[in-house]
Amino acid sequence: MRTAEELRADFEAYVGALPLSSSLGRLEEALRYSLEPGGKRIRPVLCLAVTQATGGDFEQALPAAAALELVHTFSLVHDDLPAMDDDSERRGRPSAHVAFGEGVALLAGDAMLAEAVRLALIYDDPGVARELVDATLGMLGGQYLDITGDDGDLAELHRLKTGRLFAASVGLGLRVAGVADEDQGPWRAFGEDVGLLFQVVDDILDGDGVASRLPPDAVSQLADSAADRAREHLDAVREDTGVLRGLVDAVASRTA
Amino acid sequence: MRTAEELRADFEAYVGALPLSSSLGRLEEALRYSLEPGGKRIRPVLCLAVTQATGGDFEQALPAAAALELVHTFSLVHDDLPAMDDDSERRGRPSAHVAFGEGVALLAGDAMLAEAVRLALIYDDPGVARELVDATLGMLGGQYLDITGDDGDLAELHRLKTGRLFAASVGLGLRVAGVADEDQGPWRAFGEDVGLLFQVVDDILDGDGVASRLPPDAVSQLADSAADRAREHLDAVREDTGVLRGLVDAVASRTA
Repeated sequence: MRTAEELRADFEAYVGALPLSSSLGRLEEALRYSLEPGGKRIRPVLCLAVTQATGGDFEQALPAAAALELVHTFSLVHDDLPAMDDDSERRGRPSAHVAFGEGVALLAGDAMLAEAVRLALIYDDPGVARELVDATLGMLGGQYLDITGDDGDLAELHRLKTGRLFAASVGLGLRVAGVADEDQGPWRAFGEDVGLLFQVVDDILDGDGVASRLPPDAVSQLADSAADRAREHLDAVREDTGVLRGLVDAVASRTA
Repeated sequence: MRTAEELRADFEAYVGALPLSSSLGRLEEALRYSLEPGGKRIRPVLCLAVTQATGGDFEQALPAAAALELVHTFSLVHDDLPAMDDDSERRGRPSAHVAFGEGVALLAGDAMLAEAVRLALIYDDPGVARELVDATLGMLGGQYLDITGDDGDLAELHRLKTGRLFAASVGLGLRVAGVADEDQGPWRAFGEDVGLLFQVVDDILDGDGVASRLPPDAVSQLADSAADRAREHLDAVREDTGVLRGLVDAVASRTA
């Protein structure tokens, strides 16, 4: 059983050497720049850890994990554009559009989404790509609610913008391991609650979202109860979930 | 055998009633706006006509045809953004970003690519989605050459930016009809030459690309020889290719 740190290192090695489509030419530089280490890699590590916990070979899940990180990174690159959040820094470095220009950043984001699907289509099970694409559409629906301020239902915004890709991180891990549909319930419920936990903690760290609408105690309680439910879902399965429990603790206590 | 006009009408009816992911919420409006009739629909009609000519049911090819048009439309919506070509009009109407704002247009383009893949994944043959995504990556590589002015090799730019999606239009039509790999050769060569013909005529109409680099006679000859080769590829097959020949004539003689 590999630890979360080991899985993260395996993932970095895989992504660093990931062959991209030769058609991209020098656009590849902008993709690689945005994919370089620095992110938390929570989604891919979650995917790898779920495959490992459910009896699969984590190495088989590396393309799926990279596809998840590519979708996440594509959303960040487009989100940082002046037309959206207009953030000139990402992870302490110039955003892609500052480093490469807006047009190239736009195309690089598009290409990351296409590369993500290409990786998901490596698997015999087309459900891997289908689940990734459905989650991406949910994420985009959430981003739409976010930028249009049509966020009366903050829970729905969270469920879409962050939750869907977290749920897919668990879902893809299950698919790669070949877990039967009827055994996926607690794992998928776990994915939903980890996603919610991640987003509530994000809001606390950024002072926005639920953290700007509820008193601090209520927000802390939201996070605690999401973490508790995530752990309870893991209690419901027989497998060794030590690595996944560690990930819940890490998400609950993260400070950046 | 349905005519090109009938296939176009079938396609409009299908796209007009196409169910999109419910997760998109009101972002759907921006997708529908950009997908409304007005475009030439050459790629989807080509796909439907190839399926029909090779003995398949054209109705089976409607999702693939819509996926091709969604990829094409997504590229136009992103291309029109101020960060790229900054075009405020498209087909005589305000561009998506003028009508909905830049952020929404950006997300709508992303969502069109994801919806395209979702449609391509309807088929049992994962090769449909794989070919669509590979063509999309090629198209993006071509757009990169275009916006960076790294277009020393104009033929390569054309082959990528326009040619790949045209070739995929034929390729997806073949896949849906279940044409064996060993019988696809002349059809695929036909797709390459129709794509080249389309791009040369585009350059003539816009006065750029090859039309700005070669004397008019030489450009006309490029177009004529691409059209001739396209027809010769059709001569090499036994099927009734009347509709496809009509499409070659229409592409060769278009004035807008």
